[in-house]
Amino acid sequence: MRSDGRQQGELRSFAIALNPNKYAEGSVLIEVGNTKVLCTASVEERVPPFLKGQGKGWVTAEYAMLPRATHTRNHRESAKGKLTGRTMEIQRLIGRALRSVVDLHALGERTITLDCDVLQADGGTRTTSITGAFIALALAIHKLSGTITFEKYPLTDYLASVSVGVIQNQPVVDLNYEEDSKAKVDMNVVMTGAGAFVEVQGTGEEAPFTRQELDRMLSLAEAGIQELIARQKEALGQAGARIGGGGQ
Amino acid sequence: MRSDGRQQGELRSFAIALNPNKYAEGSVLIEVGNTKVLCTASVEERVPPFLKGQGKGWVTAEYAMLPRATHTRNHRESAKGKLTGRTMEIQRLIGRALRSVVDLHALGERTITLDCDVLQADGGTRTTSITGAFIALALAIHKLSGTITFEKYPLTDYLASVSVGVIQNQPVVDLNYEEDSKAKVDMNVVMTGAGAFVEVQGTGEEAPFTRQELDRMLSLAEAGIQELIARQKEALGQAGARIGGGGQ
Amino acid sequence: MRSDGRQQGELRSFAIALNPNKYAEGSVLIEVGNTKVLCTASVEERVPPFLKGQGKGWVTAEYAMLPRATHTRNHRESAKGKLTGRTMEIQRLIGRALRSVVDLHALGERTITLDCDVLQADGGTRTTSITGAFIALALAIHKLSGTITFEKYPLTDYLASVSVGVIQNQPVVDLNYEEDSKAKVDMNVVMTGAGAFVEVQGTGEEAPFTRQELDRMLSLAEAGIQELIARQKEALGQAGARIGGGGQ
Amino acid sequence: MRSDGRQQGELRSFAIALNPNKYAEGSVLIEVGNTKVLCTASVEERVPPFLKGQGKGWVTAEYAMLPRATHTRNHRESAKGKLTGRTMEIQRLIGRALRSVVDLHALGERTITLDCDVLQADGGTRTTSITGAFIALALAIHKLSGTITFEKYPLTDYLASVSVGVIQNQPVVDLNYEEDSKAKVDMNVVMTGAGAFVEVQGTGEEAPFTRQELDRMLSLAEAGIQELIARQKEALGQAGARIGGGGQ
Amino acid sequence: MRSDGRQQGELRSFAIALNPNKYAEGSVLIEVGNTKVLCTASVEERVPPFLKGQGKGWVTAEYAMLPRATHTRNHRESAKGKLTGRTMEIQRLIGRALRSVVDLHALGERTITLDCDVLQADGGTRTTSITGAFIALALAIHKLSGTITFEKYPLTDYLASVSVGVIQNQPVVDLNYEEDSKAKVDMNVVMTGAGAFVEVQGTGEEAPFTRQELDRMLSLAEAGIQELIARQKEALGQAGARIGGGGQ
Amino acid sequence: MRSDGRQQGELRSFAIALNPNKYAEGSVLIEVGNTKVLCTASVEERVPPFLKGQGKGWVTAEYAMLPRATHTRNHRESAKGKLTGRTMEIQRLIGRALRSVVDLHALGERTITLDCDVLQADGGTRTTSITGAFIALALAIHKLSGTITFEKYPLTDYLASVSVGVIQNQPVVDLNYEEDSKAKVDMNVVMTGAGAFVEVQGTGEEAPFTRQELDRMLSLAEAGIQELIARQKEALGQAGARIGGGGQ
Repeated sequence: MRSDGRQQGELRSFAIALNPNKYAEGSVLIEVGNTKVLCTASVEERVPPFLKGQGKGWVTAEYAMLPRATHTRNHRESAKGKLTGRTMEIQRLIGRALRSVVDLHALGERTITLDCDVLQADGGTRTTSITGAFIALALAIHKLSGTITFEKYPLTDYLASVSVGVIQNQPVVDLNYEEDSKAKVDMNVVMTGAGAFVEVQGTGEEAPFTRQELDRMLSLAEAGIQELIARQKEALGQAGARIGGGGQ
Repeated sequence: MRSDGRQQGELRSFAIALNPNKYAEGSVLIEVGNTKVLCTASVEERVPPFLKGQGKGWVTAEYAMLPRATHTRNHRESAKGKLTGRTMEIQRLIGRALRSVVDLHALGERTITLDCDVLQADGGTRTTSITGAFIALALAIHKLSGTITFEKYPLTDYLASVSVGVIQNQPVVDLNYEEDSKAKVDMNVVMTGAGAFVEVQGTGEEAPFTRQELDRMLSLAEAGIQELIARQKEALGQAGARIGGGGQ
Repeated sequence: MRSDGRQQGELRSFAIALNPNKYAEGSVLIEVGNTKVLCTASVEERVPPFLKGQGKGWVTAEYAMLPRATHTRNHRESAKGKLTGRTMEIQRLIGRALRSVVDLHALGERTITLDCDVLQADGGTRTTSITGAFIALALAIHKLSGTITFEKYPLTDYLASVSVGVIQNQPVVDLNYEEDSKAKVDMNVVMTGAGAFVEVQGTGEEAPFTRQELDRMLSLAEAGIQELIARQKEALGQAGARIGGGGQ
Repeated sequence: MRSDGRQQGELRSFAIALNPNKYAEGSVLIEVGNTKVLCTASVEERVPPFLKGQGKGWVTAEYAMLPRATHTRNHRESAKGKLTGRTMEIQRLIGRALRSVVDLHALGERTITLDCDVLQADGGTRTTSITGAFIALALAIHKLSGTITFEKYPLTDYLASVSVGVIQNQPVVDLNYEEDSKAKVDMNVVMTGAGAFVEVQGTGEEAPFTRQELDRMLSLAEAGIQELIARQKEALGQAGARIGGGGQ
Repeated sequence: MRSDGRQQGELRSFAIALNPNKYAEGSVLIEVGNTKVLCTASVEERVPPFLKGQGKGWVTAEYAMLPRATHTRNHRESAKGKLTGRTMEIQRLIGRALRSVVDLHALGERTITLDCDVLQADGGTRTTSITGAFIALALAIHKLSGTITFEKYPLTDYLASVSVGVIQNQPVVDLNYEEDSKAKVDMNVVMTGAGAFVEVQGTGEEAPFTRQELDRMLSLAEAGIQELIARQKEALGQAGARIGGGGQ
Repeated sequence: MRSDGRQQGELRSFAIALNPNKYAEGSVLIEVGNTKVLCTASVEERVPPFLKGQGKGWVTAEYAMLPRATHTRNHRESAKGKLTGRTMEIQRLIGRALRSVVDLHALGERTITLDCDVLQADGGTRTTSITGAFIALALAIHKLSGTITFEKYPLTDYLASVSVGVIQNQPVVDLNYEEDSKAKVDMNVVMTGAGAFVEVQGTGEEAPFTRQELDRMLSLAEAGIQELIARQKEALGQAGARIGGGGQ
């Protein structure tokens, strides 16, 4: 039924390479279909000015696409001298989503920056970035826990994200670029391992959607995200053992 | 129960002054509680480069807060030399929402820019901007229809927006600043007169939310928005008569 | 004789609404003819770096026009990423003019920022901003005096401003936009309640002017400004009682 | 009486080197006391977009100080990425002043840009720039007249500028930096050869000034400027012969 | 003798993956030791304004490092709003070097942009970028030659680059980051397949170098570059067959 | 043989005016043929953040061309809001070159900034800037030595720079603009008084060059630079007596 033969609720192929970067405290090369994102987690022993002296840390994200990540080349934002609204929106979303599963007091006065650089884009770059960045973050916190004794483990739950949409009146999950272009609704959902919603962002610019369509999309997203979280658990293995565990 | 004595589903006071600006093709000063936004619609007989020669128009929005719209003074974005991510995100949202009820081909090769300048902010500036900008847009298109014969009326439906959230485990509608600060979920909903969803943006950075909470918030938003649209209809009167009417 | 029927020395209609903004320490919505400016005074308990530790305060101003304050829409300076020369020139003028009637030592180590946002422009936006900003400043200092005991009252005199020009060889005061466009000289004058000059800025780009024309314009300006100051006194009432009064 | 022994109405030493730049269509190195400004006039056979197709030309100016033109080094505006308000204000003044003696229709569709680069600053850099830029402009137009037959000579009059101020209650002309720092009024005056005023910009930020003081400053400025114009005539010699001459 | 056990003239390990990017006309992931650069070639059927209508094409390059390509995280240039001098210098070098082996007339009116994004940096990122970008360029031109009949093949020769330096008075080739930090001379050399020099950039900021040292470094570079070109030929195989071949 | 009649190894005319700027700690107006550069050295008693508390100083350079230094007028970088890559490249080169002959520890915690402003450009502006900036630096350090007792004199050697190139297969030294435009190689060389190389930057974008051509250019450069250093010594006289002298 879908252009690549998938079922409505079927995710694309999924691959993760752990720690491809030799300097970062945690890193992941995540591939969802033809979308490839390199996520690195960088730990710095300082916090932004607005958090100084509060005994808590910060988690933030930056997002960018390489100029030729897409069908035609885009100008670099560095050459244009400013970030586009799209980039700002996406990196604010990633940071907000990740912070929802981090206990910033438990993290202590340090900042973890997740850089999500899209090497190749075929739809779902923001959801793939969130799913991948969570893994890089988990690796970095696991590594930190080797040198720092966390009274409470700073990661409170797993976190992943997927897109859903409506094509020819049918809700579908994990849209590729071609599907995305013709979907009448574009929705991104972020959820925790416990099945709670962290972000629900649905847009019907081309055609408003009904409450029923919304409900059906949310159900597809829930199932897809739990599948992604199962893969995150498998990939992290022992490095994810203390997630959500609270105190030792 | 709420700090200002409102019921869960009760909107704040609402006032509209039509055409306070003598130059704009349409304008509105909208007050929702203590939030005051001046919305102006400017019509220009040209389209952005990416639309040239396609026989269709464009509707876009810009958003800003005066420096002292808030409790403490903010730096001007013009002095900082760039827009914040928050501003970009909001103005992209406003433009996208409005376009969902505009038939751009019917509008013809012209651009309508909605400027939403927040004179005073007390929560809900983005939803108030959308609700007000729709009225300014409707006034401008109504005015245009006095000199141009639209085969199909470019406005396909009414549109309004409201915020919802969860405070002390209870869903509430139309949060003021104080409520917004302590709400565990922050959700903005945009809907059409026909009751379809245009935007659903819910964020649970502080605390993820359940599917049930989401459902209850959506129901509150639906009711609130239909109430706002009733007020829009009353305010526009004859100027709104052809909205959604299609051909004459 | 003038397009709107006024005499050479006749000012336009004048209206002031005190404290329209609920957050600012002082604010005014001033209307001079069809020119409308919202002026807010914001008090901050700190001084710019170049004044640190000198036991004196600072008064500064920022000026902007809303995009549709004028006949056709202007691009936002925030979107362009920089202030125009005109804006910089005007806000430097407003700040300088206000400081001429403030005893910065008496003010103490705090900064008062006057934001002048033009909601609608019909000529004379810079002079109206000065006249209005003075009132907002006076309200803010009066409010400050409720909590701080000023040994010497920081406001040393009243201050107002008006434009003058030459049309068809006749000097006229308080030009509206239409007059401004055809005047051969454009002059802005700022004076104190005591009748001293603070700023005299006359430009004859289109046609140089004679010493006699200059003299006649200055006399018109003197009379107009004293009339504006009378209105400021009336509007401020008790809030202006200590202006120029020095010690208690 | 003055720190350098000058009388109230006495100008500083004055030196002009014509055409120090081998590429510019006209150039001047002007020295007024220790203030040294290099002024070049560049002719381009095009006009800015807002003048296209109107059969008239444009004259504009840019102003800058070398980093070490002053007692202590200033940061370059190119490194800061933006022009200061002071620079914009000054270059707008220079351009406006020069245009007052240029018949832009007679000039035809071309632009002359006057670059005023301050090599050393000791007060009066904006007035010296105007006086010097006029000479560079006159040289460039004279050179143009060798290849283009102007029906009407584009330069309608001479133009020069001087500063005046009040020190110890005495008006003085052509202030150096030390005097400028302690003057209670700072006024710049631009006049034509015919004795008409083009710009009068007086500022009494430190202390407002009386009408009588203003009158005495204007008289000093008139005398000083006529002296400067005499020197311009001498320097230009034959190259200035057609100034104000209108048709051949 | 060297920290990683290499001989003076011994290159680091070298790996090339052809066309890792599914959209670019040519792409390469090049690894030299631990330095990894993704090079993509994008072909556009237009030329920059300064080349319009001249019947010739353009080859240019952009260079960037991912934030965590290095030991500690660097701020993104897009977030800072401007390119550093280092980035500009490097991308100008890459573009200039590549153009030396391209016949721009033979290329015709099209632009090829080489994006060199450093995924991981361990010294020699600019030389690795040049060596890799040449391959991406060759792949793109080879691909172009499948649809366009080049009378003259636009690539006139092979091109590669290597760094040389002096450590403990011994010249060494292909320095890693650790060596680079302690080398007294830092020199980058670009050469063609024919053995001619395209760029020689040697810097002795820490310690000037003698003519003899320069000669020995150049000889090491010559040998290293010929080795790199041999590997390029092997990697390109048939895709490089027409390089330098001129007409068919 | 050369267009201006010079021999292959013959330098252009050379003139130096010492201390033309009355404020700078050291300054030079250097003329090499028709290239004129004003170099000023500014001493500040502070170091950049990255050097704080290390007991050493810093020497840095900035470079700019006046808009009409060239045949046609260039836009100001301050108006464009950013430095070009060329400017950054040149000022990094000048700073690096000068630091190679400064003992930063001996200088102590102070910064010397060399501003090189090109008043007129006729080829070789970067080499002329280096040769001139060295003199301004030497004057400033000599002046400093009048008030500060340097245990070790901070200048360790003389330093000058010249360009070389290949025209019609002949190497030539000190190219003017016309020669530069048609040279097939463009090389800039910086050397010390002791005859060591500090920078060798050769570019063969138009046509790669052979090892033999490189050798012949280097020999010409060596001879030219020693001649320039002889002139520097003559100009500095006693002010250069301690250069390279180390301890008193």
